[in-house]
Amino acid sequence: MAQKIILDCDPGHDDAIAILLAHGNPNIELLAITTVVGNQTIDKVSRNALAVAEIAHIRGIPIAKGMDRPLVREVENAANIHGKTGLDGPVLPTPTQSLSEQHAVNLIIDLVMSHPEKTITLVPTGGLTNIALAARLEPRIINRVKEVVLMGGGYHTGNWSAVAEFNIKIDPEAAHIVFNAGWKVIMVGLDLTHQALATPDVVQRIADIATPVSRFVVDLLDFFGKMYKKNQNFDAPPVHDVCAVAYIIDPTLIEVKQVPINIELTGTHTLGMTVADFRYPPKPCNTFVATKLDRERFWDLVINSLKTI
Amino acid sequence: MAQKIILDCDPGHDDAIAILLAHGNPNIELLAITTVVGNQTIDKVSRNALAVAEIAHIRGIPIAKGMDRPLVREVENAANIHGKTGLDGPVLPTPTQSLSEQHAVNLIIDLVMSHPEKTITLVPTGGLTNIALAARLEPRIINRVKEVVLMGGGYHTGNWSAVAEFNIKIDPEAAHIVFNAGWKVIMVGLDLTHQALATPDVVQRIADIATPVSRFVVDLLDFFGKMYKKNQNFDAPPVHDVCAVAYIIDPTLIEVKQVPINIELTGTHTLGMTVADFRYPPKPCNTFVATKLDRERFWDLVINSLKTI
Amino acid sequence: MAQKIILDCDPGHDDAIAILLAHGNPNIELLAITTVVGNQTIDKVSRNALAVAEIAHIRGIPIAKGMDRPLVREVENAANIHGKTGLDGPVLPTPTQSLSEQHAVNLIIDLVMSHPEKTITLVPTGGLTNIALAARLEPRIINRVKEVVLMGGGYHTGNWSAVAEFNIKIDPEAAHIVFNAGWKVIMVGLDLTHQALATPDVVQRIADIATPVSRFVVDLLDFFGKMYKKNQNFDAPPVHDVCAVAYIIDPTLIEVKQVPINIELTGTHTLGMTVADFRYPPKPCNTFVATKLDRERFWDLVINSLKTI
Amino acid sequence: MAQKIILDCDPGHDDAIAILLAHGNPNIELLAITTVVGNQTIDKVSRNALAVAEIAHIRGIPIAKGMDRPLVREVENAANIHGKTGLDGPVLPTPTQSLSEQHAVNLIIDLVMSHPEKTITLVPTGGLTNIALAARLEPRIINRVKEVVLMGGGYHTGNWSAVAEFNIKIDPEAAHIVFNAGWKVIMVGLDLTHQALATPDVVQRIADIATPVSRFVVDLLDFFGKMYKKNQNFDAPPVHDVCAVAYIIDPTLIEVKQVPINIELTGTHTLGMTVADFRYPPKPCNTFVATKLDRERFWDLVINSLKTI
Repeated sequence: MAQKIILDCDPGHDDAIAILLAHGNPNIELLAITTVVGNQTIDKVSRNALAVAEIAHIRGIPIAKGMDRPLVREVENAANIHGKTGLDGPVLPTPTQSLSEQHAVNLIIDLVMSHPEKTITLVPTGGLTNIALAARLEPRIINRVKEVVLMGGGYHTGNWSAVAEFNIKIDPEAAHIVFNAGWKVIMVGLDLTHQALATPDVVQRIADIATPVSRFVVDLLDFFGKMYKKNQNFDAPPVHDVCAVAYIIDPTLIEVKQVPINIELTGTHTLGMTVADFRYPPKPCNTFVATKLDRERFWDLVINSLKTI
Repeated sequence: MAQKIILDCDPGHDDAIAILLAHGNPNIELLAITTVVGNQTIDKVSRNALAVAEIAHIRGIPIAKGMDRPLVREVENAANIHGKTGLDGPVLPTPTQSLSEQHAVNLIIDLVMSHPEKTITLVPTGGLTNIALAARLEPRIINRVKEVVLMGGGYHTGNWSAVAEFNIKIDPEAAHIVFNAGWKVIMVGLDLTHQALATPDVVQRIADIATPVSRFVVDLLDFFGKMYKKNQNFDAPPVHDVCAVAYIIDPTLIEVKQVPINIELTGTHTLGMTVADFRYPPKPCNTFVATKLDRERFWDLVINSLKTI
Repeated sequence: MAQKIILDCDPGHDDAIAILLAHGNPNIELLAITTVVGNQTIDKVSRNALAVAEIAHIRGIPIAKGMDRPLVREVENAANIHGKTGLDGPVLPTPTQSLSEQHAVNLIIDLVMSHPEKTITLVPTGGLTNIALAARLEPRIINRVKEVVLMGGGYHTGNWSAVAEFNIKIDPEAAHIVFNAGWKVIMVGLDLTHQALATPDVVQRIADIATPVSRFVVDLLDFFGKMYKKNQNFDAPPVHDVCAVAYIIDPTLIEVKQVPINIELTGTHTLGMTVADFRYPPKPCNTFVATKLDRERFWDLVINSLKTI
Repeated sequence: MAQKIILDCDPGHDDAIAILLAHGNPNIELLAITTVVGNQTIDKVSRNALAVAEIAHIRGIPIAKGMDRPLVREVENAANIHGKTGLDGPVLPTPTQSLSEQHAVNLIIDLVMSHPEKTITLVPTGGLTNIALAARLEPRIINRVKEVVLMGGGYHTGNWSAVAEFNIKIDPEAAHIVFNAGWKVIMVGLDLTHQALATPDVVQRIADIATPVSRFVVDLLDFFGKMYKKNQNFDAPPVHDVCAVAYIIDPTLIEVKQVPINIELTGTHTLGMTVADFRYPPKPCNTFVATKLDRERFWDLVINSLKTI
């Protein structure tokens, strides 16, 4: 049976591919796309979500705009990685659909409250502002959600500071709320996603699909790769957000480890760090970190799913 | 013309009297009562709000339940001051009204968005969780609200720590959001409210009204006075929240000073302090602190208003 | 019997007058002058200490150079108040004495260890770096010192931030060490020293002494007054450090209140605040704050002492 | 030519073996042993240093007692790992030597100031309180020291919290001072020392030496191993401090990487973390972390050195 998910994102190059995977793979039932400030402003990432839906012919599901700023901190975005539009590189189509009239936070609440318990997985691939607010505004969703599979953080890796990752650092208080809410959280962080590099052979396989969607993905990876080379000296770009969706489709692709995680809220050099405690003895907790990717099967899954669109 | 207000409170003894003043005084149009966790749990303070409405025959306005916990921190309440029920002392009637079906946060948003700009004053007398969430969920209310007149904080006085006041300290992140939102904030803090002591002569004047409402207020002040004697060695209890409502009715009762205020979020000994910067030169800001109460006229106002109920 | 003191200072205009008072008043036996980075660099304030000694014919006691930087934080100085030299205004003589060969920290330790117990009062009027290091390096001095009477902090007043005073804020960790060491600490803070304004009538009385020393003091107050007018809009300059010395000569000049004090080390807006807890019930503690100055008698004392030099 | 070192330690089981290695290896000239509070109280670790010297017939060098507490924080020790004496397990001889009359901090300063520039390496294997105080009290040592090779910290590993190591966490302000002083710092942290496990084959080789010293080491490792099994579930104990000394004898035993390190002083979950920034582009810095141990050659070196005593 297909897994029902709400994809909460800030497209963003890898978010865009994550949307395509969620749409193209039959094991996912995409209930809604919700947007949140992050890689770019809320207006830009919402417009990008509509553009990706246009390219992939995603229809009949709500695309709802969410929070325009973090809970407590000032807005930071990642124009250095995702460009001025948040999705620089490809030419984007003019959307023919409109955003939902509902606020993303209310849409998330309504969907979770109206579906059977433990049937919906939340998949945040941006900052956690929407998810945190939904959990605070309607705490009953916490027990109704199946689990939260999020892209963010890193137990030994940072990108927005020495030890913090962008999605967590831009709204650490929201992350604190989500990681401590009580639901099961699977953190797909940089330690994992840096194993999901779109190397030239992978890009070629995607190009070989030779559809408008595949061309769009190649254009995305081309720009994304240049930014990752320039900013982080990576030889190939990591498709972070795609990993979270892949995990839901096939959890055997990714090894996870149960470990307590705290979000650092007051550190001078560690603000927004996802502090994982691997020490002995193991402590009971609801949080898991992704540790190892089956890279071969991951790319097979992604590429096969892209072919169906 | 009467000032339209939304009273966001956590009754609470002084909150209860603030409700009565807002209801009894013709210069106030009470649009709604919203509740928030604080002096007691959200369920208790919401029940208390209904009970006060019952006593005062407040009808035809929504009473809506709000946030059950602070944004980021764990719940703290003030049972040491307000007792096990949050309104210990008087016998409370069984409410005949029900709570609104709307969440307080959504009710606040809807009222502000549906009324003309700059006509509604928000009057928070508890923690600022509801107001902060409303401002984040619908940022357009920030420019539509007339002003925020809140009871909380203190520039030289603390009660929940050496330098922090209860309403701010229990949800400092929410306070940070409210104080920095951009709207005009008048902080009626402990420096002011400790001038509003219900001394025996005041209690006698209230008793002399000899109505069920006046008897209720006397019972409240009797319990409240004992708690303040025991906990803080006060000879008479300060009616904090009443001051905020009184200011809206007649701003000439209270002197205010324009001064920048920051909420301390990381201090070890200062968490939740409302840090007011009185240094020269004065800096531009949207925040004001109440400094001096005209005690005589304040109590005349309160007592005359109680007589009308 | 004269009180033995070690004056640990960073001259500085008010430090200079404090040195003169300590030297001129028979109730003080000045054992040593030690210097510490603060109002200016360690080299400048040490040179200034020698210059003041020259003017006042202070001979036969060691003047020792101390710490050139705070324990943990970077150096900050107060050139905006004390000028480029740290003692701008008067023409300074060329010193004929030399600095002690001992480090101030070692000198403090040696003096305290070699004098009878409870006979020496430490009088820090700058940052607390020297005193903190001495207490850590030789913890036995803590029980041997009579008391520490320091100029610094403020319970309701700040000057180097909204709520922190310069001497504490430039080395808050040192202040933490000194306030928590266990010895008796009398904090003569801004709340007190802002009552010690050198108003024109006071300056005239000093001018009327008509000695080289009095002319030096008038020149100091002239420059200091201009800086305080410009920076803090004061009509007359407060002679902070002089108050600490005056308290030792005659404790009846200054009312003090026993109250616990914590130094804030992690606050964003409150770093270096001397957090005094005036709440009921009073807690046992070794710390006192100065609250009220007998201004008349204070200036009589200072002026009479200046006359003797 | 033998490397001149001052070994600043808190024996401690691995400290004891580090002392033996420094004494037994001809490439080290041990100028002094200084002690610091850490694994146990200053009195216990100082007594242990004398006992180790007794066993190994270390004579003619000063053994000086240092700081009895951290700069700012309260004392913490590691009785759970090193036992009640700090050196539980072996029977300790009664020392026939006495501690130096000099304080460790002053001894360090004097040695560095009296030897030629860049000839002395400081080797702290405990908390950094002594070294930090020496650098503050006599800043000229910073340019005179050859380098600081310290055991402490960890870039991906913690033991005293999820992400902090004991030596750094017990005095993080001292660590901040040492890491930022400007001298070259080689951090031999847990990432490295957890590669230096005294496995049964290693213990057997040491036992086979069959000298009083080797029996002492075997007794140490026996107790240490049991504690590491119980507390951290290690199959063999890591001889942390020995690695720092080994690096000085033969730097080819250990790979190091130049990387900026900050000490976290305000984190809630990260206090005392050695935050290493491995991100691109590399930043100029004076700090290096040890990453990889040549385990074979390391143990050969240790065992051969033990044979000479």
